[in-house]
Amino acid sequence: MTDKKLVLGMGMIDGYGGLHGAWRAPHVNPGTYADVDATVRHARAAERGKFAFLFTPDFPAVRGDVEHSTISNLMDPLIQLTAVARETTNIGFVATGSTTFQEPFNTARQFKALDVLSHGRAGWNAVTTSDPAVAANYGRPVADRAERYQRAHEAIQIVQALWGSWQQDAWIKDQAANRFIDPTKLQPVNLQGQYVASRGPLAIPPSEQGQPVVFTSGGPSPHLLSIAGRYASGFIAEVWTIEEARAQRELVREAAREAGRDPDEIKYIAGLMTTVAPTVREGLDRRLRYAGEVLEARLPHLGAMLGIRIDPARIDEPLTPEQLASARAAPTDPRSSIALEVARQGWSARDVLAHGVIDFHPTVVGPGKLHADHLQEWFEAGAADGFWVTPDIYEDGIDAFVDEVVPILQERGIYPTEYPGTTLRANLGVPRQYGPDPRVT
Amino acid sequence: MTDKKLVLGMGMIDGYGGLHGAWRAPHVNPGTYADVDATVRHARAAERGKFAFLFTPDFPAVRGDVEHSTISNLMDPLIQLTAVARETTNIGFVATGSTTFQEPFNTARQFKALDVLSHGRAGWNAVTTSDPAVAANYGRPVADRAERYQRAHEAIQIVQALWGSWQQDAWIKDQAANRFIDPTKLQPVNLQGQYVASRGPLAIPPSEQGQPVVFTSGGPSPHLLSIAGRYASGFIAEVWTIEEARAQRELVREAAREAGRDPDEIKYIAGLMTTVAPTVREGLDRRLRYAGEVLEARLPHLGAMLGIRIDPARIDEPLTPEQLASARAAPTDPRSSIALEVARQGWSARDVLAHGVIDFHPTVVGPGKLHADHLQEWFEAGAADGFWVTPDIYEDGIDAFVDEVVPILQERGIYPTEYPGTTLRANLGVPRQYGPDPRVT
Repeated sequence: MTDKKLVLGMGMIDGYGGLHGAWRAPHVNPGTYADVDATVRHARAAERGKFAFLFTPDFPAVRGDVEHSTISNLMDPLIQLTAVARETTNIGFVATGSTTFQEPFNTARQFKALDVLSHGRAGWNAVTTSDPAVAANYGRPVADRAERYQRAHEAIQIVQALWGSWQQDAWIKDQAANRFIDPTKLQPVNLQGQYVASRGPLAIPPSEQGQPVVFTSGGPSPHLLSIAGRYASGFIAEVWTIEEARAQRELVREAAREAGRDPDEIKYIAGLMTTVAPTVREGLDRRLRYAGEVLEARLPHLGAMLGIRIDPARIDEPLTPEQLASARAAPTDPRSSIALEVARQGWSARDVLAHGVIDFHPTVVGPGKLHADHLQEWFEAGAADGFWVTPDIYEDGIDAFVDEVVPILQERGIYPTEYPGTTLRANLGVPRQYGPDPRVT
Repeated sequence: MTDKKLVLGMGMIDGYGGLHGAWRAPHVNPGTYADVDATVRHARAAERGKFAFLFTPDFPAVRGDVEHSTISNLMDPLIQLTAVARETTNIGFVATGSTTFQEPFNTARQFKALDVLSHGRAGWNAVTTSDPAVAANYGRPVADRAERYQRAHEAIQIVQALWGSWQQDAWIKDQAANRFIDPTKLQPVNLQGQYVASRGPLAIPPSEQGQPVVFTSGGPSPHLLSIAGRYASGFIAEVWTIEEARAQRELVREAAREAGRDPDEIKYIAGLMTTVAPTVREGLDRRLRYAGEVLEARLPHLGAMLGIRIDPARIDEPLTPEQLASARAAPTDPRSSIALEVARQGWSARDVLAHGVIDFHPTVVGPGKLHADHLQEWFEAGAADGFWVTPDIYEDGIDAFVDEVVPILQERGIYPTEYPGTTLRANLGVPRQYGPDPRVT
């Protein structure tokens, strides 16, 4: 038993929630996408639950079924989080920003400005972008992976160097002596990469946490691990099983070690989608109500995952003993074993789907205790340092999580009852950093 | 006599004010540059005075005498204005953004997100950037003027097209019918320029004013007039005399006419720097207290403007009758005639300098009535539709302007007593616009 606590972040995907039809729940304002009052409400609810940060994924192009579902991200992650900064006090803001399509000087400037004005609560989820629809919005071809990651290394190095270019003791602001800044402590960085470059300096002083926290996210390719190991203090993962997460977390920690850092300084954050309800049945009904037709359409996919055919006419019946006997979890898809486990509990095919077995992250449906059990099991198995939680419907799903799950975690001693501090670094449990990490060569 | 009222904006240059040493006034927190509480306080003070907008110039590089004065702009104009959006209700936010060094898709997205979350109060001061120090921060050479302006045309056209790409009636959000967006009304723009391009669409709905207001700023070169005439609803000027301003304003209006627009739809905004004090003498003393050494160093420059030599030992004496007789305003510098006029009033050379005769804009020093007279004279002479005011020291200079100048303008019937509306367009008096202006070809 250690003192270590798990860390929670909340995924702010679109204003509505993780369910495809969250936007059309009667208690939800369907105009929430453009309503920053709602963002504020959600941020404050998460802050009540001592969440360490809000995390905004981003995909700067229109995709998916926008006729029946929503735009899959906030209007603009950084702008929208900035707007709520002054209405919260402790929660951090981890906004996704592309190393491929944003200028390093602009990234450095905007994120550090948010860090200073939020008193040390900003984080940058630095990602590369390979989607052709996004590239087209910037009028550029998709760069190959080697180029994207080379540019990412250059961009992050430039950003961190710019962050450190106003030295920590540069700002004299001595009115009587008439000295504002010591200009010798505000020096160019003069970094020239193959794809991006900047002279600097950046004229923004340190925040209460020094500089924004670098995150990254995605699958653990060698390219991404090289980014994570060298620069990131948070790794936003997409994983479905404890085994997968443990292996992946170890890769991330090893990458940090190889880069010369202490692996405890990078927090591995697994995803979780939540439906908190008094019973599993009520939770499933809520999910079917707002995503039913989408779930139903996934029936053939479920059959493929289990290696069996499921008759659409029998969607409301449990799998037969024969089906269960011949079902095999597809080894290429880690979600299959979860689907099989749920099916063996005797749920109908529709209810198996309503358990979220075909989604971006593991899903827990039911009372708070089930959620707490999942988080504790993963945490104590070394599968994650923390979790980013996407509630089914933000409007009441955040409060339900805070009221029904958080107290159990606190009682079990694995989650803080008060914020450890007022900065994102303090609440993540990662050390202060200013400028590039001198251990990384 | 018409109903037309003048419009006021406030220049937010750095957090401290227009005086070189504003940061070291004892009643000013020298850490204001990083203190967004102060930005909020200043914005609210301006809003109390029915200012239509805050205007943030921008120079994204370190320049000037930062050892004794300040960084010459906010940490990040757009981020800092966004942070105060929710603590104000009517005032607009005109942030400078470079067409040269920002991606049009990012500009379109960030400004429209601010526009939506501020309920229609955003403006974009679209400028080209030619300074080598700024270019170096982006790792690029300085582009020549033709290229910069070609890129500016392309960037603004792309931004406006993206703003219009979510059609005004695209957002159905009918929960019962399960229709979120009409995807046929969210269409790509597919603009391909020589320097920038974007496919779109941009997934942000209209704000209460449609889309952000485009401003531009600078000297009236043919290149800039072509930008202003086609796209801008506000023109931020640097002019020193009524004659100069009238001529320039006419050029701007003519450029709008030539582009197929109504010239009344572009507001010409002249600059003004202010020191409001019970008497001129007290105002001059305030200015000397916080910029004295800088003013004194300008003595040779003052001599050159007047075509005479001024002995530094006689800086505290009025010009002699002989000096005044031989003094001639340098025809190449419009500030010279103002300097000569002040000198003829019998002020010492030091006090002439303290009148701000060598500064970025005309300066008025003294009681509120003098300021009101200046504004009224320019306004009624057709030299400006409005003014952007930079107080000497924000901390008390905005309140002084609001308490001592605004009521006089209101009594004279040339300034609104209430905000005309809640959007920037309403308060500027420019029409709603969505997407590109169809009259401009």
